[in-house]
Amino acid sequence: MVEKVTFKPGTMLNPVPVVMVSCGKYDINPNIITLAWAGTVCSDPPMLSISLRKQRFSYDIIKESGFFVVNLVDGNLIRAADWCGVKSGRDFNKFQQTGLTPIKAAGSDCCMIEQSPVNIECEVKQIIPLGTHDMFLAEVKSVHVNACLIDKTGRLDLTKADLSVYSHGVYHKLGHETGTFGFSVKKINLKK
Amino acid sequence: MVEKVTFKPGTMLNPVPVVMVSCGKYDINPNIITLAWAGTVCSDPPMLSISLRKQRFSYDIIKESGFFVVNLVDGNLIRAADWCGVKSGRDFNKFQQTGLTPIKAAGSDCCMIEQSPVNIECEVKQIIPLGTHDMFLAEVKSVHVNACLIDKTGRLDLTKADLSVYSHGVYHKLGHETGTFGFSVKKINLKK
Repeated sequence: MVEKVTFKPGTMLNPVPVVMVSCGKYDINPNIITLAWAGTVCSDPPMLSISLRKQRFSYDIIKESGFFVVNLVDGNLIRAADWCGVKSGRDFNKFQQTGLTPIKAAGSDCCMIEQSPVNIECEVKQIIPLGTHDMFLAEVKSVHVNACLIDKTGRLDLTKADLSVYSHGVYHKLGHETGTFGFSVKKINLKK
Repeated sequence: MVEKVTFKPGTMLNPVPVVMVSCGKYDINPNIITLAWAGTVCSDPPMLSISLRKQRFSYDIIKESGFFVVNLVDGNLIRAADWCGVKSGRDFNKFQQTGLTPIKAAGSDCCMIEQSPVNIECEVKQIIPLGTHDMFLAEVKSVHVNACLIDKTGRLDLTKADLSVYSHGVYHKLGHETGTFGFSVKKINLKK
């Protein structure tokens, strides 16, 4: 028997993504908020959710514009990501302070982060108040990937992207691969 | 300028959690479904979402009972996790086939996986149809953690749990730590 300790209810799902959400117009009021309360919620149409506190500076910008971009975080971005999760866009121009470049999204005037390896353009479909956080349910409208992540066959090789992940207050790199989806039922290919 | 390639819209948020969701009564019809469309959505009350296809065997069990448990996946569980994501509870008793043990949750008759390092008991609050998947919004009611993850000060040390994460079809271990939340604004503590 495994001995277990019971904790009070909490946000113990781990690890979770850590993403830099950009919002605001690329040439007027571009902003970045880093968050970990994010997840994929539907395959087709491709949808994801992000959750934000109402008090956050980005909340009204996203609510009013209806657009945001999820920018994945690699090793080079982790310090800027942490900083954008702690500081407020009310006090700082976060792009200027971090040296990151706001570029225009394809489907709107929303900004995205040029230096991020993967930019996921999202359109808000619904905002659901839950408590401390409101959940923004959004549809993915377009995805941009750094060309250096595409291999010779045209396939995206995301293992090259050096993505970060968040677990119980700690940022981690991805560690070694332990399998691919379906590995437990694959037949062994004996080489001739 | 970073050269970017535009992809069609897709579920490109990575990495994401990989969790074994247990459902059904621990002593009657315990079942496991592995999924990656999961995320924390609110801090207080603590809430998370999981997304399921209507066709999945677990869908009706969770809908009718109103309870499920999110079981985190460590290195020892990754093969069973993959298998439970590929196979259906219509065809197999997944606990028997994987050798895992269904134990009773604290707040319901729902099963949880004894061998998982962290069990998160959830109660369904709302089911939102989105397309291929329905999103189950749920409140965390209780959390159970293996006693070996608690350090001498009574603090949970989740880095000991050897958790798995999923990125673009590949399971990974967590890699090395690159910082803790807020590290970018911490003052350096000079030792005297």
